Amino acid sequence: MAEEEVKLIGMWASPFNCRIRLALKLKGIVYEYIEEDFSNKSSLLLEYNPVHKKIPVLVHNGKPIAESLVILEYIDETWKNNPILPENPNDRAIARFWAKFVDEKILQSAVQTKGKQVINQQNEELDQNLKLLEKVLKGQEFFGGESIGYLDIVAFAVLYWFQVSREVRQTDFISENKFPFLSKWIGKMSEIDAVKQSLPPRGEHLAFYRGRIEGLKSASN
Amino acid sequence: MAEEEVKLIGMWASPFNCRIRLALKLKGIVYEYIEEDFSNKSSLLLEYNPVHKKIPVLVHNGKPIAESLVILEYIDETWKNNPILPENPNDRAIARFWAKFVDEKILQSAVQTKGKQVINQQNEELDQNLKLLEKVLKGQEFFGGESIGYLDIVAFAVLYWFQVSREVRQTDFISENKFPFLSKWIGKMSEIDAVKQSLPPRGEHLAFYRGRIEGLKSASN
Repeated sequence: MAEEEVKLIGMWASPFNCRIRLALKLKGIVYEYIEEDFSNKSSLLLEYNPVHKKIPVLVHNGKPIAESLVILEYIDETWKNNPILPENPNDRAIARFWAKFVDEKILQSAVQTKGKQVINQQNEELDQNLKLLEKVLKGQEFFGGESIGYLDIVAFAVLYWFQVSREVRQTDFISENKFPFLSKWIGKMSEIDAVKQSLPPRGEHLAFYRGRIEGLKSASN
Repeated sequence: MAEEEVKLIGMWASPFNCRIRLALKLKGIVYEYIEEDFSNKSSLLLEYNPVHKKIPVLVHNGKPIAESLVILEYIDETWKNNPILPENPNDRAIARFWAKFVDEKILQSAVQTKGKQVINQQNEELDQNLKLLEKVLKGQEFFGGESIGYLDIVAFAVLYWFQVSREVRQTDFISENKFPFLSKWIGKMSEIDAVKQSLPPRGEHLAFYRGRIEGLKSASN
């Protein structure tokens, strides 16, 4: 194989960035990580993702791919070792269906706006959506069955972010009581080395969300 | 191969339904079509797509798949003849990126709400999004290159629906003047037999949108 050049343009605290870091780690891909400054978007980001101007962007041999779910499919198709998506077309469809559900329904119900104010907090709709996801997991170690797969990567990044946000706000996002399977799964995922290495450092992550909440409060005053 | 049972639960005028009909036609798959009554959702739909309760749903040997983009991937993975997605991972990523763009950005900018009133009409944001799509097509016969592919199926259903809606409203959605490549491509797509056979009958389609617009007007009065 010709020499590969893999770069990831990301932002350390982003759950979408975490998805790509984890997938590359599971595949054992060595890459250059480029941290993006949101307050001053780089010409590299604008060149590589002119449509959305968002991270993450994976650049493989000079060719950029954007949108985390699209990048995950690309990674799985390009490096065939340690498959991320299941093999069977029906299982693949189920994983993709729920990944879309996480990004469209769960994220949407978690981040609600009230006038100009963004409210990330527990609400009935979010709970109902999480219950549906809990049902998918029920009885399995991972969404991918016995090992981490596509939906684990997609859902974990978002649910872990909820948990951090929960610690900061001292609210009760994904409690053992309400969501025993999801709660156990988050714990199990957090113990996996590849996952640990893909997450933001805990202290900084908590500090970042404390700052973000302060910022949101000030903006809405 | 064991005997296959393929069913499609759809609604005749839906662009998302049209996508699946076209893909099945291109693959030469024989299937049973079940028309859904939106005003009285069937127990079949509620059983097969309890999460979104929406069409289309493909039921293959008793197993349901929902969400049109997920169904298209499933069809392409299950029946390998006449591939829909490109072969190369980079081209696949580009097709998926723009399919997401059609569903999230183009559709969103086309169907805007003003209070309770839904306004499907030309606007600056929609034009800008269509210009980006036009740039992707530029210089090619189809988004898929020399023949119809995934992005052609995804984008055509929506853009053809715009054209019908344009005729009804006598507005100027995708004119030759503004979007020469998209406009030519819509014409070319409309001439393909498999496409013709997947579209709603023209007269009824126009009548349906006339009725829909009347309904929207009455509701907002």
